[in-house]
Amino acid sequence: MKTEELTLDDLLIRGRKMWQPKKGYRMGLDTVLLAHFATVFPGNTVADLGTGVGALPLILTARAADLKVWAVEIQEPLAELARENMRLNNLTGNVNIVPGDLTTIAERWQQGSFHLVVSNPPYRKPGSGKGSPSASKRIATEEIYCTLSQVVATARKLLRPKGRFALVHKPGRLGEIIEQFVECDLQPVRLRFVHPRVTAEASLVLIEGEKDSRRELTVEKPVVVYNNEGEYTEEMKQIFYPEKSGVKSQEPE
Amino acid sequence: MKTEELTLDDLLIRGRKMWQPKKGYRMGLDTVLLAHFATVFPGNTVADLGTGVGALPLILTARAADLKVWAVEIQEPLAELARENMRLNNLTGNVNIVPGDLTTIAERWQQGSFHLVVSNPPYRKPGSGKGSPSASKRIATEEIYCTLSQVVATARKLLRPKGRFALVHKPGRLGEIIEQFVECDLQPVRLRFVHPRVTAEASLVLIEGEKDSRRELTVEKPVVVYNNEGEYTEEMKQIFYPEKSGVKSQEPE
Repeated sequence: MKTEELTLDDLLIRGRKMWQPKKGYRMGLDTVLLAHFATVFPGNTVADLGTGVGALPLILTARAADLKVWAVEIQEPLAELARENMRLNNLTGNVNIVPGDLTTIAERWQQGSFHLVVSNPPYRKPGSGKGSPSASKRIATEEIYCTLSQVVATARKLLRPKGRFALVHKPGRLGEIIEQFVECDLQPVRLRFVHPRVTAEASLVLIEGEKDSRRELTVEKPVVVYNNEGEYTEEMKQIFYPEKSGVKSQEPE
Repeated sequence: MKTEELTLDDLLIRGRKMWQPKKGYRMGLDTVLLAHFATVFPGNTVADLGTGVGALPLILTARAADLKVWAVEIQEPLAELARENMRLNNLTGNVNIVPGDLTTIAERWQQGSFHLVVSNPPYRKPGSGKGSPSASKRIATEEIYCTLSQVVATARKLLRPKGRFALVHKPGRLGEIIEQFVECDLQPVRLRFVHPRVTAEASLVLIEGEKDSRRELTVEKPVVVYNNEGEYTEEMKQIFYPEKSGVKSQEPE
């Protein structure tokens, strides 16, 4: 993609910078929240299913040191941009961007070896919602090349026992998500709902499942995006501007 | 039970009063929240599975006029007290208290005829948690005489198509609850989580399923019990003291 079709954004965490297309799918609140929700420890082996321009690896590697990340993306121009983003942030030693289809990626990667799988998948059934004139955006937001059950099944194959799968999705599909998790022996252990305001219904759900686990589910405090004055809540400020807020990231590099 | 073993409590809604044992299981926040969460319309036919002293029928009949309620309770002394409570509130024409076992009650009541089934069932597996010296309290809080799957299966049998099942339970069992609902073709359509404070994990979940429905799930605004000053939030005041708060109930009698 040409530079004039892109923006260069500062992720405001450990100096991470990210190219992304001006048009088409752009990183949103969901990706940022998932990157901060997932349980990640230094040295973990991590898979990202549908990485786009690599936003999740950029933030996850800022949260925990010495990660080894494999990230797959079916849209070649985005995968290329993700590679460029890893070069830009000196992360080529930590993050492998793989152009390809997430539904068959478990055949190419080492199954049963990952500590953490993350995914910000398409939320909608094809053709539902208002759609988008951008094919790239449709692929990122509609289940054209992968379904929820394929994403969950792939995560299960990649994870080691007690490995974790962290997903962001729409609350309307929570029933289906829990069914798929349970079917794949991914025990739902953490749930957080994202409410634009404390008086509004949830707009997103964050869920973490643990493979072959019997740990009890915890429904954590809600993520409330805006306070009554219409400003970001303290938690959102810490997530969006960790450095400006003077909040330290989980693990120093 | 003797009067000196009881308290007479004012439910602060349409003058409803309720006898309950001083010791053993007493009505809690969960029952009150469920009674206000369930979707109920005037004239509905309602079943309450495990009614105790009849708290849910007392509040539901205050929220919507002309209900026909069948309520089953396995503990005979509580069922007798529930009957007394209906007499006390002039509800014997609206509420039938039936001593018996909820797991077989569908054989005695008209299957496929109820608009709404409610239940505040035992939350814990037998012997889990710290237990209680009171047998009556153990029966109300541990799955000794009924399991979650029996409660859900009974609700399904009683409900008419598009009928609703409203349940309160512990968030730790949400995965299992959703599985059981889906297995019984009760589509989860409404979820609310109850947080003691906005910064605390959920202590209760309220869920409503709709029989043979394809309606999408909504995760409603959280119920927050206490504000930052440790006082009841406005919503809790309206639920606990609807008359003092000057809030009108859903349907005038």
